[in-house]
Amino acid sequence: MAIDHERLDRVINPKSVAVVGDSQKNDFRWLNHMKTFKGKVYSVHINPETAKRIEEELKVPNFKSLKDIPDDIDYVIFNVPRKVAPSVLQDAAEKEVGGVAMFTSGFAETDTEEGSSLQNAIIDIAKTNGLIVIGPNCMGVYNSKRGLRFLDHPVGNSKGITLISQSGSIASSFITAAEARDIPLGKAVSFGNGVVLENPDYLEYFAQDKETQFIAMYIEGVRDGKRFFDVLKKTTPIKPVLIWKSGLTDAGQRATASHTNSLAGSRSIWEAVCKQSGAIQVNSLEESMDILTTLNTLDGFTGTKVGLAGGAGGQSVVMADDFTNAGFEVPALTKESNEKLGSFFSLVGAAYPNPIDMGSNRKEIETVLETLMEDNNIDFVTMQFSASKNIEDQERAEFSMQLLTEHRKRLQKPIASIVFSPDPNATEQNIIKDMLKKYQIPSFPTYQRASIALKKVSDYYKFHTKQG
Amino acid sequence: MAIDHERLDRVINPKSVAVVGDSQKNDFRWLNHMKTFKGKVYSVHINPETAKRIEEELKVPNFKSLKDIPDDIDYVIFNVPRKVAPSVLQDAAEKEVGGVAMFTSGFAETDTEEGSSLQNAIIDIAKTNGLIVIGPNCMGVYNSKRGLRFLDHPVGNSKGITLISQSGSIASSFITAAEARDIPLGKAVSFGNGVVLENPDYLEYFAQDKETQFIAMYIEGVRDGKRFFDVLKKTTPIKPVLIWKSGLTDAGQRATASHTNSLAGSRSIWEAVCKQSGAIQVNSLEESMDILTTLNTLDGFTGTKVGLAGGAGGQSVVMADDFTNAGFEVPALTKESNEKLGSFFSLVGAAYPNPIDMGSNRKEIETVLETLMEDNNIDFVTMQFSASKNIEDQERAEFSMQLLTEHRKRLQKPIASIVFSPDPNATEQNIIKDMLKKYQIPSFPTYQRASIALKKVSDYYKFHTKQG
Repeated sequence: MAIDHERLDRVINPKSVAVVGDSQKNDFRWLNHMKTFKGKVYSVHINPETAKRIEEELKVPNFKSLKDIPDDIDYVIFNVPRKVAPSVLQDAAEKEVGGVAMFTSGFAETDTEEGSSLQNAIIDIAKTNGLIVIGPNCMGVYNSKRGLRFLDHPVGNSKGITLISQSGSIASSFITAAEARDIPLGKAVSFGNGVVLENPDYLEYFAQDKETQFIAMYIEGVRDGKRFFDVLKKTTPIKPVLIWKSGLTDAGQRATASHTNSLAGSRSIWEAVCKQSGAIQVNSLEESMDILTTLNTLDGFTGTKVGLAGGAGGQSVVMADDFTNAGFEVPALTKESNEKLGSFFSLVGAAYPNPIDMGSNRKEIETVLETLMEDNNIDFVTMQFSASKNIEDQERAEFSMQLLTEHRKRLQKPIASIVFSPDPNATEQNIIKDMLKKYQIPSFPTYQRASIALKKVSDYYKFHTKQG
Repeated sequence: MAIDHERLDRVINPKSVAVVGDSQKNDFRWLNHMKTFKGKVYSVHINPETAKRIEEELKVPNFKSLKDIPDDIDYVIFNVPRKVAPSVLQDAAEKEVGGVAMFTSGFAETDTEEGSSLQNAIIDIAKTNGLIVIGPNCMGVYNSKRGLRFLDHPVGNSKGITLISQSGSIASSFITAAEARDIPLGKAVSFGNGVVLENPDYLEYFAQDKETQFIAMYIEGVRDGKRFFDVLKKTTPIKPVLIWKSGLTDAGQRATASHTNSLAGSRSIWEAVCKQSGAIQVNSLEESMDILTTLNTLDGFTGTKVGLAGGAGGQSVVMADDFTNAGFEVPALTKESNEKLGSFFSLVGAAYPNPIDMGSNRKEIETVLETLMEDNNIDFVTMQFSASKNIEDQERAEFSMQLLTEHRKRLQKPIASIVFSPDPNATEQNIIKDMLKKYQIPSFPTYQRASIALKKVSDYYKFHTKQG
């Protein structure tokens, strides 16, 4: 059905919320999560004892039906037995709420006749009334600016990345992961079985949402592949779209069926969809974070010839391998660069390899970085900051970052970094990462992850530069 | 040349050490690192002022020449100007030391005539005198039990993993990484250009070393490919050998040439070498750690049909995909298992998917784990421990681990785990990891890393079961 974007706006940016059927058993999780919501919160519960606790302990006004609430309701989240779902939806439709998210599960994904028939009833009510239904079997809407959330997540961001996810647990991990990396994730929709609105509907909506800069999608399946492809093709030239498609193996497809009852589709089709539409295909949460970090700090980056600085000895070899394997060129430096480095290091005529070791004093660092940034064979520069060395001498680390950003500004050449630590629990490296953030230099924990993320973003911008 | 293993024994497990040419400029790093050495330490320095500081401040007896030391010397590490190297080596040969590690660099890897000619002089002296020379351009020997080290690394382990590395910086990262993960790394050799002893020599020696359980190699190149392959084929049936081969791209080969002057070889040759010899090919430090963790906790593991527990919703789908992509089967459960779960959860006739959600109370956990472990379709079980949930209820986490280990003992079925946390800085998950260590259950941070490491180890044991 055609989605009424004005009505969906009410759901995604609600001013009032009703929680239907929150239970004592789960410590009123839905009402508790609404404590951060910047707007009015109402409860609907028919059990008098529960209703009393909600009113007295949680101080939330409770009503026996949605229709009794003496206020407009933009967003309803409900957790009622599946059999009751249609009648609550009917109330919501008559009340003319913005929309409903159904946490309730037990529909077609259970492979039972009752589940399927109830699911059909939901679809009928939604279509007849033009009611926006998110789910069932989902967590609904997260809107950081509005303080609307479905788990104990932080709120406050006003814009940036929007996540469209069929899975609530993946959505929750995604929000936590982004928060930990200072990636501004402003909005998320977890929509489970997606029986009324599905992937292309959300994509189409967020493509035109002014607060959404990039879109990340976790997809288990789509019903109307053609429509999804059409919407995707229209969206990627405006905003980068990451697609994390799961259920691409037999076992994954079986798991998908019992999770969101989606048809998963084949790997080759999904690869073609991403390639032909210029979407960015990702394979994991970590890769999503790496790419969002890159998008968030490197604008319009299309370089394929990388200059690598700062790896010593074997690290240089591994660094060169990893960037080449990701699809980059790691070219030799120009004659001019070799001469400049040769005369400075008093080894005239010597060839300086790429990757290039940084040396340790400031004059050396300055010479190496300037030469690398100015080299005509090099499109962009990636520097390794060994966590341990740079924490010992933070001034030197900051000196390198200042130099890099000055050259970036002067030469319009992008830069990136790797903050490597063999000990994954060494939180000291966060000091270096925070310094890099200050200079808006994207950082990655390994060469492999850096090279793959940088390449995918570079490919994205190249695709749309050619098309546009 | 044929390597005298008795003499190499002296070098790898020295009772006495001489440091030649340690300098004030680097704060006597070599002598300072020897502070943990369980044996006698001597210094050789010809500058009277430096010698005085070494004797008075560091309390290390100093001599003008190796030959003046009134004691047998098992291991010499030296850091002298390259021109002086041959004469120091000559002294070492006449003194009949066990062997020498040359930190000194600037030989064939610099691509100069002088470097190459000095390198030839070193080779001549070594061959004429049967002198063991490690390097040049290397960090030498790390022996944890003897307290012998080349950087500020911990010491104390007595056995376990031995690392053979052409790169000193990779060796150092490897030792730190293993320490952080409680992987017992007892010995390492960093041998740089390897002009006298090279890869197969070290491999042959450690193949017969009783304290070495597994061997990890970081290789930039080998000179005698045939001999390396022969030694490797003989070693892998006795001990697992990990091979991390770098320099497999053009840029990596260029970096290799200027690092250790090695001939890197092609990717297809190295893949064939590993496949035909039953060695375990790895591509990064992280992967090495994952595989060593697996080897260290799962003995003789050959399963390919995995039962997955504990992922909820979308996590199940991703888990199933990742294990399938790594080459595992994620089979449906037997009829008996489905009936058992169906009667317990009162959904007779329902099909329970694999991956299977754990439920939350103890009776549920017990039923699910017992059924999965006993299922005849399943060779081994991997359980996800969500870091946040299990930290909230550590008793429940411990209950699951106890159950798993009891079934493991009873059924002789291996188990593994994933401790997932979307926040990479959430050190709380170390609580769960420590509990898992107590039960000797290997743990991994992502499905992808778990599945790849488990598959490679399973392949290793299967290869050698078939051969043997």
